[in-house]
Amino acid sequence: MSNINTMEVTAGPLLAQIEFPSDLKKFGKEDLTQISNELRQFIIDVVSVNGGHFGASLGVVELTVALHYVYNTPYDQLIWDVGHQAYGHKILTGRRKTFHTNRKYHGLSGFPKRSESEYDAFGVGHSSTSISAALGMAIASSIKGETDRKHIAVIGDGAMTAGLPFEALQHAGSCKEDILIILNDNNMSIDPNVGSLKEYLTDITTSKTYNKVRDDVWNMLGKMPFGKMHQKMASKVEAGIKGVVSKTSNLFEGLGLRYFGQVDGHNVVKLVEILKDLQKIKGPKVLHINTVKGKGYDLAEKDQTLWHAPGIFDKVTGKINKVVYDSPQPPKYQDVFGKTIIELATTNPKVMGVTPAMPSGCSLKYMMAEMPDRAFDVGICEQHAVTLSAGLATQGMKVFCNIYSSFMQRAYDQVIHDVAIQKLPVIFCLDRAGLVGDDGPTHHGAYDIPYMRCIPNMIIAAPMNEKELRDMMYTAQLDSNELPFVIRYPRGEGVMPHWQTPLEPMAIGKGMCCSEGTDVAILSMGHPGNFVTNALQVLQQEGISVAHYNMRFVKPLDENLLHQIGKKFKRVITIEDGTIVGGFGSACLEFFAANHYHPQVAMLGIPDRIVEHGKPSELHAECGYDTTAIIRTVETMMAKTNPLEVATL
Amino acid sequence: MSNINTMEVTAGPLLAQIEFPSDLKKFGKEDLTQISNELRQFIIDVVSVNGGHFGASLGVVELTVALHYVYNTPYDQLIWDVGHQAYGHKILTGRRKTFHTNRKYHGLSGFPKRSESEYDAFGVGHSSTSISAALGMAIASSIKGETDRKHIAVIGDGAMTAGLPFEALQHAGSCKEDILIILNDNNMSIDPNVGSLKEYLTDITTSKTYNKVRDDVWNMLGKMPFGKMHQKMASKVEAGIKGVVSKTSNLFEGLGLRYFGQVDGHNVVKLVEILKDLQKIKGPKVLHINTVKGKGYDLAEKDQTLWHAPGIFDKVTGKINKVVYDSPQPPKYQDVFGKTIIELATTNPKVMGVTPAMPSGCSLKYMMAEMPDRAFDVGICEQHAVTLSAGLATQGMKVFCNIYSSFMQRAYDQVIHDVAIQKLPVIFCLDRAGLVGDDGPTHHGAYDIPYMRCIPNMIIAAPMNEKELRDMMYTAQLDSNELPFVIRYPRGEGVMPHWQTPLEPMAIGKGMCCSEGTDVAILSMGHPGNFVTNALQVLQQEGISVAHYNMRFVKPLDENLLHQIGKKFKRVITIEDGTIVGGFGSACLEFFAANHYHPQVAMLGIPDRIVEHGKPSELHAECGYDTTAIIRTVETMMAKTNPLEVATL
Repeated sequence: MSNINTMEVTAGPLLAQIEFPSDLKKFGKEDLTQISNELRQFIIDVVSVNGGHFGASLGVVELTVALHYVYNTPYDQLIWDVGHQAYGHKILTGRRKTFHTNRKYHGLSGFPKRSESEYDAFGVGHSSTSISAALGMAIASSIKGETDRKHIAVIGDGAMTAGLPFEALQHAGSCKEDILIILNDNNMSIDPNVGSLKEYLTDITTSKTYNKVRDDVWNMLGKMPFGKMHQKMASKVEAGIKGVVSKTSNLFEGLGLRYFGQVDGHNVVKLVEILKDLQKIKGPKVLHINTVKGKGYDLAEKDQTLWHAPGIFDKVTGKINKVVYDSPQPPKYQDVFGKTIIELATTNPKVMGVTPAMPSGCSLKYMMAEMPDRAFDVGICEQHAVTLSAGLATQGMKVFCNIYSSFMQRAYDQVIHDVAIQKLPVIFCLDRAGLVGDDGPTHHGAYDIPYMRCIPNMIIAAPMNEKELRDMMYTAQLDSNELPFVIRYPRGEGVMPHWQTPLEPMAIGKGMCCSEGTDVAILSMGHPGNFVTNALQVLQQEGISVAHYNMRFVKPLDENLLHQIGKKFKRVITIEDGTIVGGFGSACLEFFAANHYHPQVAMLGIPDRIVEHGKPSELHAECGYDTTAIIRTVETMMAKTNPLEVATL
Repeated sequence: MSNINTMEVTAGPLLAQIEFPSDLKKFGKEDLTQISNELRQFIIDVVSVNGGHFGASLGVVELTVALHYVYNTPYDQLIWDVGHQAYGHKILTGRRKTFHTNRKYHGLSGFPKRSESEYDAFGVGHSSTSISAALGMAIASSIKGETDRKHIAVIGDGAMTAGLPFEALQHAGSCKEDILIILNDNNMSIDPNVGSLKEYLTDITTSKTYNKVRDDVWNMLGKMPFGKMHQKMASKVEAGIKGVVSKTSNLFEGLGLRYFGQVDGHNVVKLVEILKDLQKIKGPKVLHINTVKGKGYDLAEKDQTLWHAPGIFDKVTGKINKVVYDSPQPPKYQDVFGKTIIELATTNPKVMGVTPAMPSGCSLKYMMAEMPDRAFDVGICEQHAVTLSAGLATQGMKVFCNIYSSFMQRAYDQVIHDVAIQKLPVIFCLDRAGLVGDDGPTHHGAYDIPYMRCIPNMIIAAPMNEKELRDMMYTAQLDSNELPFVIRYPRGEGVMPHWQTPLEPMAIGKGMCCSEGTDVAILSMGHPGNFVTNALQVLQQEGISVAHYNMRFVKPLDENLLHQIGKKFKRVITIEDGTIVGGFGSACLEFFAANHYHPQVAMLGIPDRIVEHGKPSELHAECGYDTTAIIRTVETMMAKTNPLEVATL
């Protein structure tokens, strides 16, 4: 990783002595507060100059130190739900000296990753998987007779809103494996947490029964000396709980897991004591801790959404670096969505917006502020977001259900079963379609074209620019559209500084010819059409006559245009910001096969392998569909005068 | 539907007067018990001779009568979760005279379906969608100012184990729309319910607080006369609950929904009274009723799994019709799976089995009985089943995660995010792949090839017969396989009466030539290869030389074999029991395009539209990939002596 041009940062005096948890364990309990402070400072120092997630890792500094101090990692298995809070974990497990490469191309992943370290017990990125994974590991340990092996899942209250942890809790509660679930309650995911679980988690400590149990348990734990006495204490605790708490007074207890909490998650010494005690208590259990997202960095504590992943900033003044331009710049597709839906909702009372926990990321927050009755954040609940949208659509509402492409994988059955089979005209805005950049493989929106295209009744479109996004949104909400309508677009900026064009209907299933030509036809889907535009400038100078078709719709395909192309061209290139396995290019192949055209076809897009993280431009180059790659592909195709020779490409 | 050759049945004297709920409402409360009995008898009479789901609808006869008696359907919106308990609903809503066509080709659907009746507020088939859908409808009603419109979801305790209802409850509890969730608790889904939610639901009525509230509430309700007094009573009930129940003492209350129950679901008069009272109470609320699956038919009450969908039976003796054969018949693929996994687990201690609520359907029940530590039913929790399997696989276990193809749609992100990105060698057995028959579009396994094929690192195979299924299972669990391994196979019988062949390793990514030929190559995937075998017998007599390749693996493709085919044949037919959009045929097109072969390719499989229910043989014919269709396709291709003329096919 030596060629990564980023800044290494000096660690504090105690942290500098820690490469691995074995080093941490050499310190006394009295040093853990200072180590925590140094770890927090190290994270601030590195993230302020290198970027990355920020608030989440600051919130779990003490928990991270306590866990590695108490548990025998990596033998004991520690699973960080979502994973963007695992920076402290990475720094304490052999990656302090490479941590400045975090989220850089060829550098460390921003998330735990099994191939990166044996301390990363489970790869994460999407939320809410940790309890299921930990339970699987625990069951395997039981079968293998590893009775001393511990399994810990750390999960936030935001991640707990998803359905998957609820499924896992039921299984955990019924099969009695020895797992510890640490509920890290900071009342936030990326945006403030929504839904009634939030109040529930607040309420469970205010109930009388629980106050009593909590006091009993923690008084007992606090008074016990360490050593052999713990075994006895553990049984006492068990008995105490059994006597006082009825099974039904708490969701976790109701589902068969013992519940402990709530505990101050920023008192590292106390956390160490509690974790040591809990090690002695067998079976599935929940430790509910309270933390503050952004803890220790004032501004981050105060505006947790802004400081979730602030980019590069001045750690002294808190000023977040923003590039200043002299001329108007293109907006983000996200903001075009966020502003356009308000325009549409203002004139069409049936327009509504739904997002599962990404109001800032997808920019639905603007509509939520202006029209709170008609735009919702439903929490990390993609399945519910889609079926709710289906329910709304049965009543004639025009719902824009905005879900990141990779998160839509969570609601795939709902798209098929609740929307497509019923032909309900829900509008799916798939944000973060294509290669997303720094977040890497878990977040790349690589698969949506094939997984959506195989479903009957779907319309699937991708805009090449801001105007097309606006017109697709406008068209989708018209009464004339009676089908589910997918609009996929990438993270980041478009190409039109003056983007507030009049809203116009777009013919569904119609592409356009951007540039006439005779030698090669390039068929583009969505934003990569702009790479083609750039490539054409070079290729025209080389005297190669390239036609460019912006196809706009993966489904239905523009068959008239494809017939013209099939009749005219012997060489075709398709390009898409998605996998080439079963994607837009394959759709073109299917058309050509069904209609007996036989051009040479080169398909550009995401290759059939896991693409790691990096800047989108770096990844587009690596995957061979940036401007340079397009030029190269055309040149190579043209170099073969006899089409049969192209076979050796 | 006049051409459907099934038996019409005579209704009892009161039921005979009821075409629609408006007719039901003309009767007095005192007639409702008899109407319920007649409705139950009608269901028994029809299902015993026509087949279909049985126990579920018998269990909700009284609830069905009460709901249509009290509510103003279809204006009030009634959503039956899963939907196989909606037979009574169909009979009372205009479909009594056509009910004998239930689940027949071109007959009534076995599930509620919006296009079939305005009384079917939401199409169902998969479980656990009803609360989200009802909430969407309720929110739409609020926005449209329909303050008098009611929204009712009826959901079983089995369906409640899924994550989706938990997501929906959180939203319902926080947004205060007026919906009623009827929790139909019969302690069953298809197989006995598992997981700790089951105990939770039992426990909530045994807690002291709850007994008290229940008594207070129902005493109050019982004593009140009907009429204007109800408004006052409702407030009293509200106050009563508020005072007695702490927010945290019950999952539903904790999440912000009022909880009422438990109530005898077979007392129709009492149900009518309660529903009328609940109509007056605004906001989100749960009514917990107890019913017996199979109620009123003794044998069905006693063996609820067997009588979930027993087929045709003698309603007097309870003898289930089974065809008796003189010679050994091929087993079901399901049983081959169920027996083979035990063979594998006996020799390989790492082999495990996981199913989400389908132990009987997929035949994992045999291993669960023999090796309860190593085979689990996790409930209707597909997401958890997959991520749990991933956790097990990190520890070296060889997990056979058996999920129906259409249910795997529920765990799509888990396959990508938790298994494929981490290259964990979980083995997915996709049962019910292809057209499943009577259950229809919600259950057809039509999409798994494209949605799995686009994911990197996957191996995807489909057996043509029992031996191949066994050898694929054997190969997948060997240590030499380090990748996720999908094995898809259809519902029903294979082709080998003597199926217990020795287990042998199969070369991954290798197909085979079943039959040499020169005119046309047919490339088959999985069981439809047998249709090709049959077709070849006819075609050979016609003097057409057809080669047949059983490709076995969608991914990786057998590239050596495809090179041979590409070089040798000008005409290729692909056939698969799945959608032709992005499926196996498209994978072949991608190979031909990348390698510059240009055969004419005809792709047979499920077309790009929703295919309704019917017998698999009827549907295969309709979709054009049965033996006859293969013969026709070859003949048409051959009729064109000049390949260019094939363009007019």
